[in-house]
Amino acid sequence: ILCKNYFEYFNSYNYIHIHEDMIKDEVRTRTYYNAIRRNEHLIKDKIVLDVGCGTGILSFFAAKYGAKHVYSIDKSDIIYTAIKIRDANNLTDKITFIKGLAEEIELPVDKVDIIISEWMGYCLLFENMLDTVLYCRDKWLKKGGLIFPDKAYMYIAGIEDSLYREEKFDCWKNCYGLNFTPILPILKEEVVIDYVDRNFIVTDTSCILDLDLNTCTKDNLSFVSPFKLKMTKKDYLHALVIWFDVSFSACHTPISFTTGPYGAHTHWKQTVLYTTDIITAEKNETLNGLFALKKNKNNSRHIDMKLHYVFNGVHTKAKATQLFNIG
Amino acid sequence: ILCKNYFEYFNSYNYIHIHEDMIKDEVRTRTYYNAIRRNEHLIKDKIVLDVGCGTGILSFFAAKYGAKHVYSIDKSDIIYTAIKIRDANNLTDKITFIKGLAEEIELPVDKVDIIISEWMGYCLLFENMLDTVLYCRDKWLKKGGLIFPDKAYMYIAGIEDSLYREEKFDCWKNCYGLNFTPILPILKEEVVIDYVDRNFIVTDTSCILDLDLNTCTKDNLSFVSPFKLKMTKKDYLHALVIWFDVSFSACHTPISFTTGPYGAHTHWKQTVLYTTDIITAEKNETLNGLFALKKNKNNSRHIDMKLHYVFNGVHTKAKATQLFNIG
Repeated sequence: ILCKNYFEYFNSYNYIHIHEDMIKDEVRTRTYYNAIRRNEHLIKDKIVLDVGCGTGILSFFAAKYGAKHVYSIDKSDIIYTAIKIRDANNLTDKITFIKGLAEEIELPVDKVDIIISEWMGYCLLFENMLDTVLYCRDKWLKKGGLIFPDKAYMYIAGIEDSLYREEKFDCWKNCYGLNFTPILPILKEEVVIDYVDRNFIVTDTSCILDLDLNTCTKDNLSFVSPFKLKMTKKDYLHALVIWFDVSFSACHTPISFTTGPYGAHTHWKQTVLYTTDIITAEKNETLNGLFALKKNKNNSRHIDMKLHYVFNGVHTKAKATQLFNIG
Repeated sequence: ILCKNYFEYFNSYNYIHIHEDMIKDEVRTRTYYNAIRRNEHLIKDKIVLDVGCGTGILSFFAAKYGAKHVYSIDKSDIIYTAIKIRDANNLTDKITFIKGLAEEIELPVDKVDIIISEWMGYCLLFENMLDTVLYCRDKWLKKGGLIFPDKAYMYIAGIEDSLYREEKFDCWKNCYGLNFTPILPILKEEVVIDYVDRNFIVTDTSCILDLDLNTCTKDNLSFVSPFKLKMTKKDYLHALVIWFDVSFSACHTPISFTTGPYGAHTHWKQTVLYTTDIITAEKNETLNGLFALKKNKNNSRHIDMKLHYVFNGVHTKAKATQLFNIG
């Protein structure tokens, strides 16, 4: 039995391992660091709110680069470690840590100038922590205030993945002499969270979500987007890969990072959706589709996805609607 | 934010991914398969109980190799998939699936001849599912009945691990210009679950637990064991590695598997405990210690560990007591 409680541990966020992995995610942490230290003119003498501060690293960046005061909210016990780190760095009078849910706590100020947060989950919206950031924006961010980061984009592309697809699905026909194929319907609804080599991409890229955190609402986090993927070479199409980018558009020069196959590895990896059909495609043929994402009814922090596609090629004619969940 | 709910998902055991990983753990599944198919003389016409059956794979093995009937218990929704697989393999009249907790359900028979179960967690006892197997043994296993597997052993050895140790602990002194060392005390209490290359082992091996499932009680699952590790070469000692083996001693010829660094990779990996001291050791010098393991008071499925060691070498004299948890 693979230990479910091993995973449950992470659940509390009290365990340091998860914070270790996040801080050591160089793409993630260094981009936030650069967004703050290269923009002292935006941070200086400002009141900053850090939503879901964890070990407090973003708060320390803000305090070190000139914030007048930082208010840092987290519901996990990790905040006690954050307080010790604050004091070890002589930032005691610059940062106030508040333990609790953002939706339930009070701030000692009416408004803040800047909200910083690292709220992104797998496939951007898994965990739906963005809801909390938007709540904080609406309650505390002053008019014209800044959000770091303030733009998020989700992308989709097609991949050739014969090797892994076969390994994942074909073995069940004969599993130690047993027919295990009844497992396939649920297996096919699971997205795979893993690194996709950019060399496996066989189509161009389509943007399926363009979020402006300055103006978007909770409703924008459930969406249906059409997409069109054109084959960049003659190949097979086995799956679609989804990733996200975020950017700090208020910065003096553009600062952003990608979690996609064309960038360096991040702890978010990519999200892979296997299509029902294996598509034999010629260069320039196109897959037309719709991608829908919404909160799970039973657990608002989980997401449900729906993929619909049509392909009319010389070799393959295909059409399917599929449901997916993250697992 | 790394998605805590991604891990929570596994928690339910309804999600197929975890079962996929377990079935595809060749060392694990093939050993159970061999233990059953090579011992038809033990299984034939017997009543078998599968505790925590998951997708039912061990039940299918037992039914296919002659069991009169198999009763298979699991509390997760995965049991509905297990039922479909059973029916697809014409084993409908051979296996009864019962959804529920072993401690709460009733069996249609008074006694069973054989209990099969795959209950092992990280560091063998994480999750403490063995409690449930022992409960089933005491309630349902007939006198002289068999348990598959029925022996479990835990081992400890010393490793040289300068590279990873440095990477894990030394970076916090300067973390983007901040002193993050207040994170170290909690970081040092976390065991690391990872694969240890056998070439990093620098001592002999000591057995710290020898469990006979035919006779042991719940009390035996909390224990204190002395150990003695002799350096097999001149090297540094940075950490201790713990692993477990299980065996099916009722089999006609010995069948067992190891999850240790001297065997093939399994999904259990190994458990690494970093010592407070970096020990500079000569060949044949010895580390004397005590290893204690018990259930966590707040969550009986979690475990707490305590390590005490003394080293009196020509270069290093060291003595420490450390607490660990899995995270």
